[in-house]
Amino acid sequence: MDISVDCVIFGFDEQQLKVLLIEQKHPDQPSRSFKPQMALPGDLVKDQESFDDAAARVLMELTSLKGIYLKQFYAFGNPDRVRDLKDREWLRSFRKNPERRVVTIGYYSLIKMDDFKPKPSSFAGRVHWVDVYKVPELAFDHNEIVDRALAILRHELMADHIGFELLPEKFTLSQLQRLYEIILDKKLDKRNFRKNILRTDTVKALEEKQTGVLHKPAQLFSVKNPRTS
Amino acid sequence: MDISVDCVIFGFDEQQLKVLLIEQKHPDQPSRSFKPQMALPGDLVKDQESFDDAAARVLMELTSLKGIYLKQFYAFGNPDRVRDLKDREWLRSFRKNPERRVVTIGYYSLIKMDDFKPKPSSFAGRVHWVDVYKVPELAFDHNEIVDRALAILRHELMADHIGFELLPEKFTLSQLQRLYEIILDKKLDKRNFRKNILRTDTVKALEEKQTGVLHKPAQLFSVKNPRTS
Repeated sequence: MDISVDCVIFGFDEQQLKVLLIEQKHPDQPSRSFKPQMALPGDLVKDQESFDDAAARVLMELTSLKGIYLKQFYAFGNPDRVRDLKDREWLRSFRKNPERRVVTIGYYSLIKMDDFKPKPSSFAGRVHWVDVYKVPELAFDHNEIVDRALAILRHELMADHIGFELLPEKFTLSQLQRLYEIILDKKLDKRNFRKNILRTDTVKALEEKQTGVLHKPAQLFSVKNPRTS
Repeated sequence: MDISVDCVIFGFDEQQLKVLLIEQKHPDQPSRSFKPQMALPGDLVKDQESFDDAAARVLMELTSLKGIYLKQFYAFGNPDRVRDLKDREWLRSFRKNPERRVVTIGYYSLIKMDDFKPKPSSFAGRVHWVDVYKVPELAFDHNEIVDRALAILRHELMADHIGFELLPEKFTLSQLQRLYEIILDKKLDKRNFRKNILRTDTVKALEEKQTGVLHKPAQLFSVKNPRTS
């Protein structure tokens, strides 16, 4: 069997949750029926490479992104995951053993889109940020991989309150609620949200209010670091 | 590369947290220096088998355990994870390609020891429940796999309050505290524990107290099902 890594990079810009996709590179001699597909940045793990190293290398090679914390989240082992007709031509052009079973290790990350500017490398056609709720049909089983990563992201948001670092250092509870609503893809009740988030003891009220706003300025909060409190 | 699955089965008996280990089977012609090691139940994934199916099959083949909910938790890909001197002889006796890199997918489960009686199969020497805090040196990187599974178990206990089904249907908060203390391996403050657990809204007080105890009977609780409340 061959082993690959695939990276699900979620980007947040305070308005939308996006996922980073690449366009598969064209084969040298494509058939007339060949259609390049969108896919997650991913590739085979090298012989003497750990999974973590492979994920960082592949992401860098395909999108030029470096220094991103990638977390392994699931191993995908469906025996037929690369046997779909739509994926055959690409595999035959780019893989030494196109018929061989490939299992893949999924990695994910959640980044502030402003902080990182992905660029396509020579290995990838193009790089796109795509609204996570409008992902087209992807190569292989990559839709399933995105769905599972999103489910894990949501679970970690609820259970571990990850993702606060995507907000400015000082934020209002409305901004925080918006982050939750975008990632969970549902409206939340304002009163319950505030009560529950304050109960988790993860944010602290600052002696400061918003400035430069037309409406009544809201209280500002910052993340409470559980290791120092 | 070859791919295997390894199963970390935690057993709880209200007194101790244990992990299920097998004794590696003796090679047919062992050298005089051969020492069988303890190991997690694990083996190679077959060509057309999914990881979940492989984990269930391997656990059954090695320990006779069936019908256990196994959860994938991590893929171990250190390129040298089966290259230790201590593992060479066993690999040479039992693997077609003993020099090949093997990556393994870790599965874990937490079961009530009373409900399951593991039995060694012809593939395994013996099967033992071993105190999780007294695990000896294991084959390959299996100590690391146990440690990571334990870290995940602790995290899920704290974040998702899993494991309550290991208690009797009606339990006291002291029994619940004992479960937490055994899994987390530390003493907890009684007052804080009660305050925090009631705040999570996962247990409900019953209109019932303990019977047949010599001390003042304690209030009984049961698990609140979040899907129906």
